[in-house]
Amino acid sequence: MTTTEITTENTLFISAQDLLSHWLGHRRLTRRVIEAFPDDKLFDHSIGGMRPFATMVKELIDVSGPGVQGIATSDWSNSSGFDEHSTKGITSKAALLNLFDESTDAIASYLPTISAERFQQTERAFGMYEGIVFDLILYFIDNEIHHRAQGTVYLRSLGIEPPAFYNRD
Amino acid sequence: MTTTEITTENTLFISAQDLLSHWLGHRRLTRRVIEAFPDDKLFDHSIGGMRPFATMVKELIDVSGPGVQGIATSDWSNSSGFDEHSTKGITSKAALLNLFDESTDAIASYLPTISAERFQQTERAFGMYEGIVFDLILYFIDNEIHHRAQGTVYLRSLGIEPPAFYNRD
Repeated sequence: MTTTEITTENTLFISAQDLLSHWLGHRRLTRRVIEAFPDDKLFDHSIGGMRPFATMVKELIDVSGPGVQGIATSDWSNSSGFDEHSTKGITSKAALLNLFDESTDAIASYLPTISAERFQQTERAFGMYEGIVFDLILYFIDNEIHHRAQGTVYLRSLGIEPPAFYNRD
Repeated sequence: MTTTEITTENTLFISAQDLLSHWLGHRRLTRRVIEAFPDDKLFDHSIGGMRPFATMVKELIDVSGPGVQGIATSDWSNSSGFDEHSTKGITSKAALLNLFDESTDAIASYLPTISAERFQQTERAFGMYEGIVFDLILYFIDNEIHHRAQGTVYLRSLGIEPPAFYNRD
């Protein structure tokens, strides 16, 4: 099999509008995975020394909304960064879901304000992680898929069937 | 927080060329996760009744290369489909990695032949799963991230540190 030459440089794969819809579908699924955990297991269940799922979700919350806001505004002063966990005082599922919903709202508000030019610019997310804006945003989404999938193994190990991966409604 | 109105319909988020680079980075990471498994554990380790990681990888192989080829050619006759596992006779890590590499080559060959118009068309992948082409391709990638992440929990449960999520080199 030979590799086909790329003959154009800028073939639109997905628009920002469709990317947002795609991500919001993932957010709905992630929310259902959080909800599927028993309250206590959300905060204390672990496999192989890994973090409880609530701690992974806190990372997603700290990264996604503030990440998109920081990219949209070029102002990182409101973000706690990957490792600071402004969410660390949270100890209940209900409170975690509230913060998760707030970060979903931030994504939905700020992503549409980012221009096509901006998606191609280099940015230092959280003052630390340099990358092209579209790649940074894909990292946020991929990181959500990654940790959510780890959460589904936690659920299976607890005898709970996870929400269906293909359902994004 | 208010939701900002979307004022344009077709803001380029990512090009097909950059999407391919992004996916190939994920393929390199997925390959490292496969390699990190002891040969026997790749085929028999399980948590909570889930499939062994090799079986998940077979799904990725059956879906990704044939999926992109099918979309590029509108011909699904060469694909085994999500559930048939043309790879089912594979019982060694080396053979699995060879097939994985072949499917990566198929992605790299066929994705650049898909036009901007085609990415927006509706297709019935494998004759069964209807969706817009860009969404079908994102599903293939997301499914890879999802199952690979489940594999990383398997590795942790075996006392093995998974390859770093952020390293796509």
